[in-house]
Amino acid sequence: MRRSDLLLGVLALAMTVPAAEAPADEGLWLFNNPPKKQLKEKYGFDAGPEWYDHVMRSSVRFNSGGSGSFVSANGLVMTNHHVGADALQKMSDEKHNYLADGFYAKTSAEEKKCLDLELNVLEEIVDVTKEVEGAVKPDMSAEDAFKARRSVMAKIEKESQEKTGLRSNVITLYQGGQYHLYRYKRYTDVRLVFAPEQQIAFFGGDPDNFEYPRYDLDICFFRVYENDKPLQAKHYFKWSAHGAGDNELVFVSGNPGRTDRQNTMAELAYLRDFGYPFVLQRLNRMEVALMSWSQRSEENARRARDELFGVQNSRKARDGGLAGLLDPALMARKQAEEEKLRKAVASNPELKSAADAWDRIAKAETKRREVAKDFLMYEGRSGFNSQLFGVARTLLRAAEEFPKPNGERLREFVDSNKEPMKFQLFSEEPIYDDLEILTLTDSLTLLCYQYGEKDEMVKKVLGGKSPHDRAAELVLGSKLKDVELRKKLFEGGQQAVDACKDPMVELARLIDPISRKVRKIMDTEVDEVKRQAHSQIAKSKYALEGDSVYPDATFTLRLSYGAVKGYEENGKQIPFETNFHGLYERSAQMKNKPPFDLPPRWEKQKDKLTLSTPLNFVFTADIIGGNSGSPVINKNAELVGIVFDGNIQSLVWDFIFDEKEGRSLAVHSAGIVEALRKVYEAQDLANELTGK
Amino acid sequence: MRRSDLLLGVLALAMTVPAAEAPADEGLWLFNNPPKKQLKEKYGFDAGPEWYDHVMRSSVRFNSGGSGSFVSANGLVMTNHHVGADALQKMSDEKHNYLADGFYAKTSAEEKKCLDLELNVLEEIVDVTKEVEGAVKPDMSAEDAFKARRSVMAKIEKESQEKTGLRSNVITLYQGGQYHLYRYKRYTDVRLVFAPEQQIAFFGGDPDNFEYPRYDLDICFFRVYENDKPLQAKHYFKWSAHGAGDNELVFVSGNPGRTDRQNTMAELAYLRDFGYPFVLQRLNRMEVALMSWSQRSEENARRARDELFGVQNSRKARDGGLAGLLDPALMARKQAEEEKLRKAVASNPELKSAADAWDRIAKAETKRREVAKDFLMYEGRSGFNSQLFGVARTLLRAAEEFPKPNGERLREFVDSNKEPMKFQLFSEEPIYDDLEILTLTDSLTLLCYQYGEKDEMVKKVLGGKSPHDRAAELVLGSKLKDVELRKKLFEGGQQAVDACKDPMVELARLIDPISRKVRKIMDTEVDEVKRQAHSQIAKSKYALEGDSVYPDATFTLRLSYGAVKGYEENGKQIPFETNFHGLYERSAQMKNKPPFDLPPRWEKQKDKLTLSTPLNFVFTADIIGGNSGSPVINKNAELVGIVFDGNIQSLVWDFIFDEKEGRSLAVHSAGIVEALRKVYEAQDLANELTGK
Repeated sequence: MRRSDLLLGVLALAMTVPAAEAPADEGLWLFNNPPKKQLKEKYGFDAGPEWYDHVMRSSVRFNSGGSGSFVSANGLVMTNHHVGADALQKMSDEKHNYLADGFYAKTSAEEKKCLDLELNVLEEIVDVTKEVEGAVKPDMSAEDAFKARRSVMAKIEKESQEKTGLRSNVITLYQGGQYHLYRYKRYTDVRLVFAPEQQIAFFGGDPDNFEYPRYDLDICFFRVYENDKPLQAKHYFKWSAHGAGDNELVFVSGNPGRTDRQNTMAELAYLRDFGYPFVLQRLNRMEVALMSWSQRSEENARRARDELFGVQNSRKARDGGLAGLLDPALMARKQAEEEKLRKAVASNPELKSAADAWDRIAKAETKRREVAKDFLMYEGRSGFNSQLFGVARTLLRAAEEFPKPNGERLREFVDSNKEPMKFQLFSEEPIYDDLEILTLTDSLTLLCYQYGEKDEMVKKVLGGKSPHDRAAELVLGSKLKDVELRKKLFEGGQQAVDACKDPMVELARLIDPISRKVRKIMDTEVDEVKRQAHSQIAKSKYALEGDSVYPDATFTLRLSYGAVKGYEENGKQIPFETNFHGLYERSAQMKNKPPFDLPPRWEKQKDKLTLSTPLNFVFTADIIGGNSGSPVINKNAELVGIVFDGNIQSLVWDFIFDEKEGRSLAVHSAGIVEALRKVYEAQDLANELTGK
Repeated sequence: MRRSDLLLGVLALAMTVPAAEAPADEGLWLFNNPPKKQLKEKYGFDAGPEWYDHVMRSSVRFNSGGSGSFVSANGLVMTNHHVGADALQKMSDEKHNYLADGFYAKTSAEEKKCLDLELNVLEEIVDVTKEVEGAVKPDMSAEDAFKARRSVMAKIEKESQEKTGLRSNVITLYQGGQYHLYRYKRYTDVRLVFAPEQQIAFFGGDPDNFEYPRYDLDICFFRVYENDKPLQAKHYFKWSAHGAGDNELVFVSGNPGRTDRQNTMAELAYLRDFGYPFVLQRLNRMEVALMSWSQRSEENARRARDELFGVQNSRKARDGGLAGLLDPALMARKQAEEEKLRKAVASNPELKSAADAWDRIAKAETKRREVAKDFLMYEGRSGFNSQLFGVARTLLRAAEEFPKPNGERLREFVDSNKEPMKFQLFSEEPIYDDLEILTLTDSLTLLCYQYGEKDEMVKKVLGGKSPHDRAAELVLGSKLKDVELRKKLFEGGQQAVDACKDPMVELARLIDPISRKVRKIMDTEVDEVKRQAHSQIAKSKYALEGDSVYPDATFTLRLSYGAVKGYEENGKQIPFETNFHGLYERSAQMKNKPPFDLPPRWEKQKDKLTLSTPLNFVFTADIIGGNSGSPVINKNAELVGIVFDGNIQSLVWDFIFDEKEGRSLAVHSAGIVEALRKVYEAQDLANELTGK
């Protein structure tokens, strides 16, 4: 029995155990509208505004895509290894593979500055719905409405930024039902403190990804600096003395990226019949190409590791989502929900104007299907998978967009995004010719397949060469690896870019008309139409259901809640937690072969470990991609774990939440400290966390 | 310097060294029309008919897809490990993994009988062109012509089989320009003698597949039995004392499966624009599914190994082929060849009727494109990837086809195929539920994507369930794993099958109408039209070019020739052979990680090996898939190596032969004996080979 079991038992008894028929722990709730009623009724939890404010300010968004939290007064930030992976990869070189081998700075002088990592901490949320809606007149065409809205949002953001100095983003919630201004403190001096070996962070690799039981130490520590000194954080999560226990109420505070729970049947049908299969086709071919290239040499593997991981992760997630979309039982449930809502709307005279919203969405989805291929291949770059191409397009468009009035630019070029964009564009991240040629060859080959060789644009793109020869010519001929040149082109504006004959810039220029054309159709004839229709649906739903509704995820801070709890699968009971003993067992079962091999340190220090210490656990709170790295906290806002995955059964949560078998996965706080102290001998770091 | 270098030097000097501008070593030549002129002119080689007869009778076809040869008077047959893989897999179980771990029968009593391996030895070739053509009247419709030809071919085969007792197949050559009757001796009592570990047979795995330099011991030995005694083989290849040397003339005698060298531009365009990308899409998704499943456990990996290998192999081959098709330079060369031939045909009054053959093919290809998806998904089973489904379809169709007159049956049900079909159908090969569910789920998901859920046939196939649930229901509900039941249904004929309610049989029954419909269109409106047009083109080509032409590959015995020779790649000289030293070096370079790890035996016995012994070598002879396992022999018909692969640059040989960088790969005879004696201590086997 592990040390804290007794304590946990007492705690569990003290909790209000919810009845079996209680509503599910569903929801990605706004911090300015938390699920107080549900928490009180189901769990007897009733905290004041300070609790929510403290949790909000202790939470951190990784702008590269992910979540984290402050875990010490000295600006220490914890996230997942796989959220930090991008930064780890970028600071690695042929001699140092921090992503694979890990890192530990014993002193603050050894902490290693990240190339282009930006963290955001939410300071304030302001409802600006009225201001945004006031700018859109009822008689406007869809295109004008889109422009007017974009313009007023850009204006609000700019004014806010000038007034507060904070990063300011207007977030579209409830598909346009509400608009909230989010003000963030930006941190760009972020330094690496600790990362374990990828082997243990991602133990079990792709095979065990989205599976449970799991045994991953998927953590990574950074420190935020201000004026070259560690940030003195007013808000941070204290470390729980015991960690997560069975049946305990826990919260997740993080940035879920995107859900499609309000999707209508027409939208789900699009995803099922085209969207997901199309993306999966691309992911499957990329996975095969990257995998077989990686296996040719250790150096290839290092170079492609991060991209391959991303591809495998997306592939498995989409596979799971598609399985849900292809499940008639699940679709029938969605269908029934939609019909119920449509009926309620139709029979309510005040909601009359929303009655045909579903049909308008269906029509927009038909339009989407018409332009989807062009949109994905050109604007979405499925035909141009190359980092250098991405740089070229950004430079080309920056020259064209920035001279326009703020409100008339493409969304990503509004003033409030300028600094983050430059930060990314001028990154010294290494770009590898061979990997570039591989991915560009693969995507140009896909382009040939999608349009045929005789297509005029494909002919122009290839210039009479095979995909491989053309990719090699473009990658080896481009000078855009030179960051100084990028800066010169960016600062030089339209004139400098017009004069630039770099082959990647020429390619970006060649396809920009078609890219912009389909994007415009998608923006105005699809997304805007849907935004208006969804706004009406969401408002109707709001009118009918009150504040029991939460908006779909938008990669902004949300609060979820749930209970630590195992589940039954194929008649077998899966316990709520795993421990270190299970880790060594799984490794032995798989003959210690990659990705089930353990770092040498873990073999060596095994005897020092208390093997019954919990390592991972599952719970019912609602999460989605983007929540990776989110703190899991107890009712006292103490850290008991860190979210790193969901099980396979949770992959349908994109569209519909279900907690029968679906679970969120976290690394247990006790396991983190045990590993830091006994395996890594990182006493200072462990002490900083536990406050000892 | 290795022992035989001096000897090889002398031999090389003795050879007629061909001039640089000599014609390429192209061609998959018929044994009844060997390239005597080319051999004499380029290499001064001039053998009599006994030489060709001896080589023919020493060569072996593996009916499962591959080649081999007799290498001792006691019926010992050598082939590739990857040709024997299917048999090795089938005789393995949870306790014995012969495919992975290898096998050696020290005594003949230990030799292990294969479940369903059939070997064929070609005894005789008879030209039956006149007889076949006589049955087709000029005024027949395409459909009638097809039936008439099928009927007469079945009649010839049946009569030949009855007369000679030999397996008799009428082979369509030159796309219908000629028809030859091939008579084979069938051997079905085949026993495993020796297989190395798959690690060393397929050292470097998928990453090094189709690459060079290589270090693979891709060999496997079987023994043919007759009346429970080892076959006394009159014809077999003697082992060369020195093996293959630089610049030496060598021959390959094997069964190339399929080439498309006579393809017209319209056919290549079909493959480029639809055929290859479609198949690659399926292969990519299968590879990803099998790979991630395999990585979940050792037992999964064992079960899927053979199928995964096949998928990866096909995928890489198609990728290479597609790269060739997308190379404008290569396509321009094919285009010029086609234009030249068309011009010559058009300007020759005697060939007038062939002038529009290319247009007829183009029209047929348009038709093919129309039905290709249905054909591949239903008749080609891309939507029904399950062994049990294959059994069900065979049983269903056998009941329907066998009562018909021989000539009116589907091609695979003619009498001469009945025994091989039964042999396969009644195989005790294990079928695994989990793997079946995996592959069937994947292919049913593809079916949904290709037709959409609303498609009537898809709805019927899925029966209101998700692809996974439906696959599980079918696999777990079917009783066809029971071979006795299969026999009962097969023997019971139409009545027994009609009464059968097995879910897999019901599924096969459900889709049989659409399968047969598209197959009929493909047979009569595409293939038959093309057959006639190609026949005219081939005859015209024959009339214009004489017997310098060879027919496309047909998985029948062919002779190729060429020189042992390195090549230049990216300005670097690649030597003609590798050795054991290089093997250990490559393994160390990849940190001995799979698939670059060596079997323990190879680590242990390293000191005993003469590391300079050659292991693999390259040469210019023309090969294609199906040639795997073919003997490589010298002018004295002594065995100097065994074909196991081609390099990446040879993958375009599907359509066009080019020896600038393209090379065939073989295991060196000296390396085989060195490994048998020093690593496996298989002295008896080595002595049997070398006659010592």
